[in-house]
Amino acid sequence: MQAIDNQRITNYKRPSFVQVLHGQQTETTPVWVMRQAGRYLPEYMVLRRKYSFFERCQTPELATEITMQPLRRFALDAAILFSDILVVPQAMGVEVLLEENIGPVLPNPIRTMADLKRVHIPDVSDALHYVAQAIDLTKVALNNLVPLIGFAGSPWTIFCYMTEGKGSKTFDKAKAICFSNPELATKLLDKITETTIAYLKMKARHGVDALQIFDSWGGLLSPEDYQTWSLPYIQRIINAVKLEYNIPIIVFAKGASYALPELAATGATALGLDWTCSPQFARQMTQEKVVLQGNLDPALLLASPQVLEQRVKTMVSGFKRGQYIANLGHGITPNIAVEQVQRFIDTVKSC
Amino acid sequence: MQAIDNQRITNYKRPSFVQVLHGQQTETTPVWVMRQAGRYLPEYMVLRRKYSFFERCQTPELATEITMQPLRRFALDAAILFSDILVVPQAMGVEVLLEENIGPVLPNPIRTMADLKRVHIPDVSDALHYVAQAIDLTKVALNNLVPLIGFAGSPWTIFCYMTEGKGSKTFDKAKAICFSNPELATKLLDKITETTIAYLKMKARHGVDALQIFDSWGGLLSPEDYQTWSLPYIQRIINAVKLEYNIPIIVFAKGASYALPELAATGATALGLDWTCSPQFARQMTQEKVVLQGNLDPALLLASPQVLEQRVKTMVSGFKRGQYIANLGHGITPNIAVEQVQRFIDTVKSC
Repeated sequence: MQAIDNQRITNYKRPSFVQVLHGQQTETTPVWVMRQAGRYLPEYMVLRRKYSFFERCQTPELATEITMQPLRRFALDAAILFSDILVVPQAMGVEVLLEENIGPVLPNPIRTMADLKRVHIPDVSDALHYVAQAIDLTKVALNNLVPLIGFAGSPWTIFCYMTEGKGSKTFDKAKAICFSNPELATKLLDKITETTIAYLKMKARHGVDALQIFDSWGGLLSPEDYQTWSLPYIQRIINAVKLEYNIPIIVFAKGASYALPELAATGATALGLDWTCSPQFARQMTQEKVVLQGNLDPALLLASPQVLEQRVKTMVSGFKRGQYIANLGHGITPNIAVEQVQRFIDTVKSC
Repeated sequence: MQAIDNQRITNYKRPSFVQVLHGQQTETTPVWVMRQAGRYLPEYMVLRRKYSFFERCQTPELATEITMQPLRRFALDAAILFSDILVVPQAMGVEVLLEENIGPVLPNPIRTMADLKRVHIPDVSDALHYVAQAIDLTKVALNNLVPLIGFAGSPWTIFCYMTEGKGSKTFDKAKAICFSNPELATKLLDKITETTIAYLKMKARHGVDALQIFDSWGGLLSPEDYQTWSLPYIQRIINAVKLEYNIPIIVFAKGASYALPELAATGATALGLDWTCSPQFARQMTQEKVVLQGNLDPALLLASPQVLEQRVKTMVSGFKRGQYIANLGHGITPNIAVEQVQRFIDTVKSC
């Protein structure tokens, strides 16, 4: 395996990401990119051809190397540990396969009370030890020059995969369980929530500087169902983690900007936004109670340089400096030129 | 082919759908179901096994029969002509294949100015004569007892398919053209808009009682881009149709509830809502200027009878009688029991 090469990580010491999250004054707008260690990077593709997805996640040296890759190219203000939200159901005893170019497949989804017996709340320091090791290695590689984000899926989002058994446009099977067997749904969500709390606490203990909860499928729920099936579990995670750690927590509920007021009241430090939500709307909905993060349409990285620059400037000017972290509104896609990522970051920094 | 059987269409004379759209008082809440002639109906599946998708669309007797099928089962307040939004690009000279269980494929998408030369604005009364014939036949079958809706895709949504060449989660290629070659994007959108205007006028001329514009992919755009790439073209359609016909126009922009105030100002008679938008939010955003239509999560048809009934009642009570048409928040999915559709309709009627 390629040794971790620290030499090119210079020019960092950029605490603005952490400062903003701790409510301290900062002169510059911090920036990072969701899925910044991803398929648009040629050096990532080299490792992707060589190792399977879960080999990349579960080998601490590989996860560390992949985490570091975008930092060698770009002056990013945060690293995010390379991993996947589905390591959690895996650790809970549910088989997860990741088929390249297809997506996750869980051959034995949880749909009955009998299935639920197969799901356990693991000792995360055992079942997910490789994540802790990857954090330790990455912290050494980062040398306190760049803050590190750890993440997990929201319980609702993990529940979607565990019940549906694969990706879906509608996650009908997941919803059908909520609407027809709420006892089963609640019990499974409880187990996921307990595991996620222990998992995020472990990350905090190993020194990550912030946590992000991805509620990728929150936006498939109606506002009423969001209050029942997603929000309370996110709230429990925030309460439990905050009880022990003074660590900033970012919640990104894609497509659920209708829930911004309630999410702002959870005690989350920051809220991620997708691009369907204007800066003005987000500020109004959250009353400047939280830091906002986002939210450029990733497809704008396919724009002409002029359009990209102009749109990034408009975005940054719509938010309030010191309460804002620049990012995309969703993960970067594979078809993006690295020059355009550079342009995105440079433009944020020029604002 | 099975003859059109009108005998079971009794118990109609339900003008409430038309009354609501024309601002007249009505005692009951009209109800119909997006994709009500669809795969959840066993009698539709019989025809689906026998005829290809475009045979079903392009054979007036088949389109009529399929349109009538749900009306024989349910006391629906409107029929919607069985067709597909992609008959428009097909009529414009772009090949469209529909692969069952996969979706639409356009083998030669439009991505350059040279490609654009292949796209023409057809004489719709020639290229889409089968739609006019289907309307004529369906009007006879309906015998003025149930109003008929005709529909088209929004120019942005048709543009998505014509440029991307297939369905997509993100329609990156479509957006890349807008962001990097706005001249091409605008010219193609102009051609689609002109064709759609002629197409909807033809439907009005043949006697449909209302028109619905499906902006299925509007919600993939940011609010700013919606103002540029979708809204103006919808506005042009509404202006052009309203100039000649006093026909109600319903606009359903899925996922774009951020644009409700602007859509309410287009002169549209009614706005369709998906389920991520609460009745209260929609009423506030539109200031009761328009009729609202929607918006039950289609997955609630998988709920227990009690939950379904309770949720339908909550939905109906959130809207304003006389300014409201009950519907789902998106098309009904194939996995729904007909009894649950019956329950949905009965519950609306009981409110």
